[in-house]
Amino acid sequence: MRLLVIGGSDAGISAGLAAREHDPTTDVTLLVADTYPNFSICGIPYHLSGDVPDWHRLAHRTRTDLEAAGLNLLLNHRVTAVDPQAHTVTAGTATHGYDKLIIGTGALPAVPPINGLDQLGWTDGVHVLHSMGDMFDVQNSLLQRQARAAVIIGAGYIGLEMAEALTTRGLHVTVLEQLDQVMPTIDPELAAHLEHHLTERGVSVHTGTKAQAIRTNDDRLAVDTDNGTHDADIVLVVTGVRPDTSLAAAAGAELGARGAIAVDRQMRTNLPDVYAAGDCAQTWHRLLDQHVYLPLGSTAHKQGRIAALNATGANATGANAVFAGSLGTQAVKVFDLVAAGTGLRDTTARQAGYDPITIDTVADDHKAYYPGATPIRLRITGDRSTGRLLGAQLLGHHGAEIAKRVDTYATAISYRATVDDIADLDLSYTPPLGSPWDATQIATTAWQRLANP
Amino acid sequence: MRLLVIGGSDAGISAGLAAREHDPTTDVTLLVADTYPNFSICGIPYHLSGDVPDWHRLAHRTRTDLEAAGLNLLLNHRVTAVDPQAHTVTAGTATHGYDKLIIGTGALPAVPPINGLDQLGWTDGVHVLHSMGDMFDVQNSLLQRQARAAVIIGAGYIGLEMAEALTTRGLHVTVLEQLDQVMPTIDPELAAHLEHHLTERGVSVHTGTKAQAIRTNDDRLAVDTDNGTHDADIVLVVTGVRPDTSLAAAAGAELGARGAIAVDRQMRTNLPDVYAAGDCAQTWHRLLDQHVYLPLGSTAHKQGRIAALNATGANATGANAVFAGSLGTQAVKVFDLVAAGTGLRDTTARQAGYDPITIDTVADDHKAYYPGATPIRLRITGDRSTGRLLGAQLLGHHGAEIAKRVDTYATAISYRATVDDIADLDLSYTPPLGSPWDATQIATTAWQRLANP
Repeated sequence: MRLLVIGGSDAGISAGLAAREHDPTTDVTLLVADTYPNFSICGIPYHLSGDVPDWHRLAHRTRTDLEAAGLNLLLNHRVTAVDPQAHTVTAGTATHGYDKLIIGTGALPAVPPINGLDQLGWTDGVHVLHSMGDMFDVQNSLLQRQARAAVIIGAGYIGLEMAEALTTRGLHVTVLEQLDQVMPTIDPELAAHLEHHLTERGVSVHTGTKAQAIRTNDDRLAVDTDNGTHDADIVLVVTGVRPDTSLAAAAGAELGARGAIAVDRQMRTNLPDVYAAGDCAQTWHRLLDQHVYLPLGSTAHKQGRIAALNATGANATGANAVFAGSLGTQAVKVFDLVAAGTGLRDTTARQAGYDPITIDTVADDHKAYYPGATPIRLRITGDRSTGRLLGAQLLGHHGAEIAKRVDTYATAISYRATVDDIADLDLSYTPPLGSPWDATQIATTAWQRLANP
Repeated sequence: MRLLVIGGSDAGISAGLAAREHDPTTDVTLLVADTYPNFSICGIPYHLSGDVPDWHRLAHRTRTDLEAAGLNLLLNHRVTAVDPQAHTVTAGTATHGYDKLIIGTGALPAVPPINGLDQLGWTDGVHVLHSMGDMFDVQNSLLQRQARAAVIIGAGYIGLEMAEALTTRGLHVTVLEQLDQVMPTIDPELAAHLEHHLTERGVSVHTGTKAQAIRTNDDRLAVDTDNGTHDADIVLVVTGVRPDTSLAAAAGAELGARGAIAVDRQMRTNLPDVYAAGDCAQTWHRLLDQHVYLPLGSTAHKQGRIAALNATGANATGANAVFAGSLGTQAVKVFDLVAAGTGLRDTTARQAGYDPITIDTVADDHKAYYPGATPIRLRITGDRSTGRLLGAQLLGHHGAEIAKRVDTYATAISYRATVDDIADLDLSYTPPLGSPWDATQIATTAWQRLANP
């Protein structure tokens, strides 16, 4: 069986490896547009910060590892056409036949309408940041332009990770965000603390500020906003991504949520023998019970695996592999703080037809008497009528086990837990690392008090 | 309604507070044997180490806080008799009437048969360590005896926490453990690493070594074992606890698992209007579906609350509060390592009639390229026939979020998860704090490979 995979990032590699593991006789070929298969795109800020001096280390696996696992890697092979009837794809002058095809073309930077942006590029010090190539361009700009000041347009997680990275590197960083808060994926009540922390660390943060134009200014750059002009040696435009679907759409693939490739929970497209996974495809949401667009590396790995298991045949019991769904669980470290969230927030829950109540609590990460205790801010969203836990957001110190505390909530939500259930969980306790009622439980108990007065 | 609570530790205080919160008209009186209500017994090692110089800080809440919450605290009131027919208890020369009674007498140190132990006490530098009083005695011994060497008999979590505490304080510590491993609550494969770490930090660890006699030796002490004699200035005997049930038993309370007070899941004893909670009572095990004896602070808090909710009346819907059960979830920090576990191990699962498979995995706590990544050792136990997740044990570095990773497993087990389910969980990922497949998922995937070859 010939399995062809388009894409060498999280979804594609995960698919290839799962296919070989599931059926070692599968002939797996990956067509990779660049020469960086299986690199951790999420690691880009940490090379640019200097934390990971050798970019080769950003590879999840080396090319040798991948080939040893039985993957045929065709690098610099950008696919230009898929013919689903003929079961072939075209890359350069070559045609490759397949029995099954998995499309993992990922996402592309989504850039807002900013005057001058289409005339400027990386040679001018103006960058997007989504691929290894983009990373090298930024690195070159930083060095060649002897950059001392950066403007980052967009205060999502990449924008804030880069704000930390470039500050660590000694640059003065200005962050411009069109919305009224940083990190639009968490509630403003938490985002305000994150913004304060960025400011404390010397980052100039301008929320509610729209970049209107980027222009060269002698050998520097200037970004004009509705609130004034910011000079910089380098400008990063990191305002989100959109699914890269041109290839799939041209082949006749239906598009779904936010224009991503429409797939079912087996990761099948509408085209025969064609699957899609990762940032190019839509994502089943475990709480909303519908498809959404939620591009995340952890999801891409899972979807790639599901696509491959189904492409290489049903399992021993004849059942198909089904993608369990995403809750949009995320974590981001920004200097000394970690923000994390899972599930729905008040606004998203209300849009989905729930009757949400959201509360705000502060609880120590461990017993206050033991040195180093720090407060965690928690926001819990539950449904008033059913008592169901809908979502949780946490903000706290790097050492406060925020990222794994959100996982407790994510796990509980997966099993359709009520908010009340959380207090019943038998969670670990030792004074240096927790409390007899963990912070996660103190927060849900506060929700119960508000919801059941 | 007069609610009387015997005991001022986790179960008793939690009961008193929950009773007042549930029904603020309740007249709540706590009879506390000593003068240390609501102290964190789990914090004792951290005062003795010097981490918490002021022992007052070990209080979860101050006496003022407790009284402000409406609790009448009668300190130095050791109850000597309960008359369930008359609905009275005797403390000193006074008799106290009740409508409902909650017994939270806790546990007592269980000491093994060691020659000489019954003739020696804290004035000789020989100590148990279970109460605030014991803590002050140890502190006095350390100072008065200018202790430079300690022998700790018992390598459970208190023994190891005290090994760290006294080493931190500059003593040379020898740990004697009758079993072939330290931390008998985790598997020997993990315990071996913990023992190695203790040794690296200068602790002399002797497993498979039985203390046979303790004797004075000039102004020092000597502990004779089957493998030689160890001199010390202070000896701690920390070999576990047994439920303190004498009062309840004399009143006619039935005893259950390991001699603890028999209670149902509403925390009711067989005596009318008498409840029991915490280390004196048996504990419903969520996986075994039976009562066991599992004295843990986190459980005591939950049980005290359930007892109080039922003692102060059914809730608005007429339902009783039910103790959801324990999984024996635990965590302990020993120097730079944290060990944690939840659910059943291979041996306990087999005893319970499961057909367990247990695997051992090592996975990094976060992406290896980001500075500070450390390996986590994970052991996963699942049932071969049903695929059900039965338990997990983790050992790793203090910063590796071990304690909260075990909570992911504890949460999943509470919902009767299969091992396969874990890979489907949408857990958080950011390179400084995790991997696209979290270590918790890498371990369960390894189990799947072994169980379904």
